[in-house]
Amino acid sequence: MKSDKGSSRLTRRDFLKLSAVAGAALTLGGGGASAIMSALGRDQSTAAASESDKHPFYGARQSGIVTPQQKYMYLASFRVIAESKGELSAMLKEWTKFSTLAADGGHRQDSGSNLLPPPDTGESVGLGAANLTLTFGFGESFFAADGKDRFGINHRKPLYLQSIPHMPKDHLEPSFQAGDIAVQVCADDQQIAFHSLRNLIRLASGKAIVNWMEEGFISVPDGGQTPRNLFGFKDGTANLLHHSDKGYNDVVWAGQSEPLWMQGGSYLAYRKIRMLLEVWDRTSLKDQEDTFGRTKESGAAYGAAGEFDAVTAARLPADSHVELAKQSRQSIHRRAYSYTGGIDSRTGQLDAGLLFLSYQRNPQEQFIPMLRLMQSKDRLNEYTQHVASALYACPPGIREGQYIGQSLLEA
Amino acid sequence: MKSDKGSSRLTRRDFLKLSAVAGAALTLGGGGASAIMSALGRDQSTAAASESDKHPFYGARQSGIVTPQQKYMYLASFRVIAESKGELSAMLKEWTKFSTLAADGGHRQDSGSNLLPPPDTGESVGLGAANLTLTFGFGESFFAADGKDRFGINHRKPLYLQSIPHMPKDHLEPSFQAGDIAVQVCADDQQIAFHSLRNLIRLASGKAIVNWMEEGFISVPDGGQTPRNLFGFKDGTANLLHHSDKGYNDVVWAGQSEPLWMQGGSYLAYRKIRMLLEVWDRTSLKDQEDTFGRTKESGAAYGAAGEFDAVTAARLPADSHVELAKQSRQSIHRRAYSYTGGIDSRTGQLDAGLLFLSYQRNPQEQFIPMLRLMQSKDRLNEYTQHVASALYACPPGIREGQYIGQSLLEA
Repeated sequence: MKSDKGSSRLTRRDFLKLSAVAGAALTLGGGGASAIMSALGRDQSTAAASESDKHPFYGARQSGIVTPQQKYMYLASFRVIAESKGELSAMLKEWTKFSTLAADGGHRQDSGSNLLPPPDTGESVGLGAANLTLTFGFGESFFAADGKDRFGINHRKPLYLQSIPHMPKDHLEPSFQAGDIAVQVCADDQQIAFHSLRNLIRLASGKAIVNWMEEGFISVPDGGQTPRNLFGFKDGTANLLHHSDKGYNDVVWAGQSEPLWMQGGSYLAYRKIRMLLEVWDRTSLKDQEDTFGRTKESGAAYGAAGEFDAVTAARLPADSHVELAKQSRQSIHRRAYSYTGGIDSRTGQLDAGLLFLSYQRNPQEQFIPMLRLMQSKDRLNEYTQHVASALYACPPGIREGQYIGQSLLEA
Repeated sequence: MKSDKGSSRLTRRDFLKLSAVAGAALTLGGGGASAIMSALGRDQSTAAASESDKHPFYGARQSGIVTPQQKYMYLASFRVIAESKGELSAMLKEWTKFSTLAADGGHRQDSGSNLLPPPDTGESVGLGAANLTLTFGFGESFFAADGKDRFGINHRKPLYLQSIPHMPKDHLEPSFQAGDIAVQVCADDQQIAFHSLRNLIRLASGKAIVNWMEEGFISVPDGGQTPRNLFGFKDGTANLLHHSDKGYNDVVWAGQSEPLWMQGGSYLAYRKIRMLLEVWDRTSLKDQEDTFGRTKESGAAYGAAGEFDAVTAARLPADSHVELAKQSRQSIHRRAYSYTGGIDSRTGQLDAGLLFLSYQRNPQEQFIPMLRLMQSKDRLNEYTQHVASALYACPPGIREGQYIGQSLLEA
């Protein structure tokens, strides 16, 4: 690590103060720095709002989207096996009831008989809520599969829910299909997050089957500095640029051209990106920095003095991540987590990388062109493999008395 | 969950206060409650000692054994490919240097040239130490393999380092062999723990290859109550019974009959125990409680009023976990973590359970008979599968100027 701490530079905290004042103005500052910048985004400035440790499940928006990123995440994909809309909505009602309870730090009530299985699995009793959020989205196959309108809702399919096209560098694993329903569970405690997902899987019994489950983590340095990804680079500056109501409307929330049930929702794009850490770790510091177009220690883009200084084109390598992000001129709301999954028994190498998640109002315009540009030119491709890919339509939040997906199923 | 909170009972905190006063007397209280009790052990009372957030790597004992349990653990097994003692000790010197640095929250220094790979992978810069501990142990094959005394140290093999025998219910996966060296890395931050293990793997390049890497977590309720395992039962009462210098000498630290280099060390027994959560979750509360011999909500043993009350034999089912633990009359120092590893693609079921770790002075006497008794009779076997098994000899700590394993290699 270089010893220059850049202490006279603008810090992330300074930047947040500034952006709170400057507000929407900053979000209009052009596509340059509002780029993806690969790894981890976390809003610190709203931390005070979550001091209560709880995010209510009911609300105008689903929590877990612009909610400050918690330390742990589980992401799971489900295949619906229920054949009727009635069975499906029965499951979604159970999920709603449980989600409401879990977000409040509660557990399913005792059945009153010890001859029945306990309604709650119980491993998070006494642990609180730890900022738990549960976020639900629907995949393309939820609407129609094999040409069949499964639940009579295909005419309500949202505008931009078309699968992410195959990309030239994709190494997708067949078992990681998108599935019908995605659930993102985040909390500052891993056991609490797992407890919720496990109980959702259990409540789905006979109605939906879990396809896969991933788990990820992020670590934020004291003082709320930008977290680093497993390549050791700071990442996540870009989310700050749309950190305002206006910014979220521009970037995250689905608009009025959508079917009514989707307005105020968002699209979740997911890519599981394996990082070839052993290869990266044998690469020179210069090559690493050229790949990102940033200084490793400070996080400043080439040609910029500090992490939050504007990116000037002058010195950026043409295939660097920052240069391509600048070119794409699109904003997305990033919510990525690192993962480690043991040693790959085929190669003896680490199975680790990034669970890339981003939320956006129009993935066809905001996300897919950016992904295509990156996949065709980004020097980072030498060090990564995309092994899973999925897109989900996440409805807005619900109010008490409603259930998840009700406005879609019953419109 | 039952609503009886048992608030008039002795709490874990009360118990800790009491045991601090009673000291060694309690550790002599017989084998009854000092049983394994399956899941998670955490000493709360020494938390004050770690307020600095750092456990120095140098010391009379290795840290990470009786150190209060951190939230995250990585455990990895290495196969030595170095063919000379010189190459091997060169690696162990590098590991020592790095471990000292990492335990202090530091990173490997810049090489001074950006044409070289950065010496440190850098993902934990700015994150501190988070109570990081690195604990090293040697497997049986480190001393001799295929009848060959690999490094001329086989005559110094510790007394009780004989592999755990095959047990009737074992479902061991061949890729999970014990290997030559084990490293347990624990921290209250997952990224910090991973950073250390990754850099050890990297520093081993050309000298040792990682066989496998596991990751686990525990969550301790506010107020330091006993944590719950993924079966939803409280677990970890037993460690408190030997929580004193005398207790640790009786239970944990290898004695004077061992070769000099091993005295004051400990044996690490490891079992990866898959829990069949879907089966468990369909089991009645009564069957679950009969299996453990404890009340699920309070954690009290059958026939006892509170979690920390003595176990009386009267009402315990003969094949319950508590009854068998009582019969084994042995103490071990537990340091287990829960794990979740996605969905098993062969069965569609959760791959989750317990990374059971225990430290003891004599595994042949303390651990293996207990394991054999449990495997032959314990009702818990219906809900678990043991998929990995290993035993390692962990030397005592080292002082500045020494390297890990030096007293073994150079005695």
